[in-house]
Amino acid sequence: MNIQGKHYRTIWPEDDYKVIKIIDQRYLPHQFVIEEIRTFDDALTAIVDMHVRGAGLIGAAAGYAMVLATVEATGKNSFTGFVTECARSLRNARPTAVNLEYAVNRQLAAMEKGKNLGEKIVLAKETASSIADEDAEQCKRIGLHGLGILKEISNKSSGKTINVLTHCNAGWLAFVDHGSALAPVYEAFDNGIDLHVWVDETRPRNQGSSLTAWELYNHGVPHTVIADNTGGHLMQHRMVDVVITGADRVTRKGDVANKIGTYLKALAAHDNAVPFYVAFPSSTLDCNISDGIREIPIEKRNENEVKYIKGLYREEIKEVLLTPRYSNAANYGFDVTPARLITGLMTERGICRANEEEILRMYPEKARS
Amino acid sequence: MNIQGKHYRTIWPEDDYKVIKIIDQRYLPHQFVIEEIRTFDDALTAIVDMHVRGAGLIGAAAGYAMVLATVEATGKNSFTGFVTECARSLRNARPTAVNLEYAVNRQLAAMEKGKNLGEKIVLAKETASSIADEDAEQCKRIGLHGLGILKEISNKSSGKTINVLTHCNAGWLAFVDHGSALAPVYEAFDNGIDLHVWVDETRPRNQGSSLTAWELYNHGVPHTVIADNTGGHLMQHRMVDVVITGADRVTRKGDVANKIGTYLKALAAHDNAVPFYVAFPSSTLDCNISDGIREIPIEKRNENEVKYIKGLYREEIKEVLLTPRYSNAANYGFDVTPARLITGLMTERGICRANEEEILRMYPEKARS
Repeated sequence: MNIQGKHYRTIWPEDDYKVIKIIDQRYLPHQFVIEEIRTFDDALTAIVDMHVRGAGLIGAAAGYAMVLATVEATGKNSFTGFVTECARSLRNARPTAVNLEYAVNRQLAAMEKGKNLGEKIVLAKETASSIADEDAEQCKRIGLHGLGILKEISNKSSGKTINVLTHCNAGWLAFVDHGSALAPVYEAFDNGIDLHVWVDETRPRNQGSSLTAWELYNHGVPHTVIADNTGGHLMQHRMVDVVITGADRVTRKGDVANKIGTYLKALAAHDNAVPFYVAFPSSTLDCNISDGIREIPIEKRNENEVKYIKGLYREEIKEVLLTPRYSNAANYGFDVTPARLITGLMTERGICRANEEEILRMYPEKARS
Repeated sequence: MNIQGKHYRTIWPEDDYKVIKIIDQRYLPHQFVIEEIRTFDDALTAIVDMHVRGAGLIGAAAGYAMVLATVEATGKNSFTGFVTECARSLRNARPTAVNLEYAVNRQLAAMEKGKNLGEKIVLAKETASSIADEDAEQCKRIGLHGLGILKEISNKSSGKTINVLTHCNAGWLAFVDHGSALAPVYEAFDNGIDLHVWVDETRPRNQGSSLTAWELYNHGVPHTVIADNTGGHLMQHRMVDVVITGADRVTRKGDVANKIGTYLKALAAHDNAVPFYVAFPSSTLDCNISDGIREIPIEKRNENEVKYIKGLYREEIKEVLLTPRYSNAANYGFDVTPARLITGLMTERGICRANEEEILRMYPEKARS
């Protein structure tokens, strides 16, 4: 996507993969900072501390991290031991999103084909770039498929502005480019469909008010930031035409783990007959599990992300305390929306319903697992 | 309630009503500030800018504001004209909570009985104190009735800690004393029931993380602050035994206007068979209306309450910007939970179901209106 006329991805290698550059998302929307990642440990920190975040982007970041691991491993006693340990750290860095596991496994499989260290490094670089390129391409295609849904809704509303509600950030900042939930929004906007986006601020980390709002602002898409509590009221009053969210893991039956609070919006959409779509590339689909509520591990993060919040004060980013100092807080990162509440899934192969039959018809190669 | 061993109400008159003192809730939980209100305009500002807030407390504050209005009116050309204008300003100050209207109307009716200015002022003082005393007494009784429900839940869970989830602040800070939703919590805690409270932080103004957490901390009740997005996940995992919220207006059919986001928690409770109770004194019951979604006016507040947030930075309260500077925000203060999602209503007269028949059986004198 473009920032002030210049095209950016969220992550890219430079100097033959010696440096991985990322947009450090901790400073958005207030400051645009590019971070240079030079070691595996720095890459791991960038994922754990959420300099990069979002299902697709942490997958891509894990791919590049494995390149750094492979290069560093050549100096170690046990190449395989070091790489395996790095893979393990990456998998545990963020347990809910399956893209991380997907990228790590793909790198390990690719490296196995290398006959020597030099070949392994070349394969790791190629694989990292493939993961990133495929992510961007798949998101582009999600946008084109989703555009059909938004066109339909726009036609039905006979030219009135259509209102999309989204939760968290599943825009290009959550992927390598384009985004999942926001890809159709950008396609529709660029195709002249009159739309407006309700942006859930998405506590506790406010990816909506900081990242989604920043993306939409930069692209010129009309939008309004709302507290996460607001969506139900808007839907009761017919002020939302469609909800589109991203996903961090989707089961073979169509249950969806996504940012905490997504389930509440799905309930409200269902109660008010508002269509509720989930957009994701196939790297997010985990056909090894069925029951999302029982089987998807939900990341619990530090309570200070609830007790403190960062924002801009006199042009500097400050963190302020919101609660009594000695009150405890709990910080669950994700929840699971059962398939029964979901109108449809938007993937790079097209739109399908959230049930096992339609998911496996669209991804027959995943039926075996 | 007690703060460090000293009993406080949230509002009280001093010096024969020349000064109305309030706990200025804008500074909690970080600073305990008592504000002195000496003029009607100051009282109005305290209500509009939420130095005081909460259904019962803004009713009581309106009662005292009308005393100040009456005293100031004696120096005006038209006593009645001035008082009527003040009454109008108060009614419009916060449109959703019916307690404001209730208190203003009761003051106007009381004053009509005064034969001269002196008598009118005496009656206004008496009425203001009655409104405040009744609020405190009714809340105390809500607590005793609600205690029965919590005892039952505790018995069923055979001694395990019971988990109560609450939204916004319907504790003693929202009333003159005791609170509505938190009154049963305090009663249960004081009666040795093992409980823990999940505190929705309640964006955008964070009455949960600032006021409810502060109240519970001061009373020693175990509690955990959570982002508003979290309750659905907790209910899916059987980590909530009962939800209790307050109300700003309840219709004769049992629809409930309460802080924005309440509806989403009611949906999640319903979806997970978690009992959902609404606690309020009868001053909150508006039997003139039936359909809450269509008929209750929803207050829209300044967008800056969403874009900025206040918290403690190095022992000072600072306000930081959360969104891109040029993004718009919307700020709806309340939503309406339909009666069908509510397990029961806790009032000063007892517990009833949220339907017209049971409400009017409990409040037969309101059936006429």
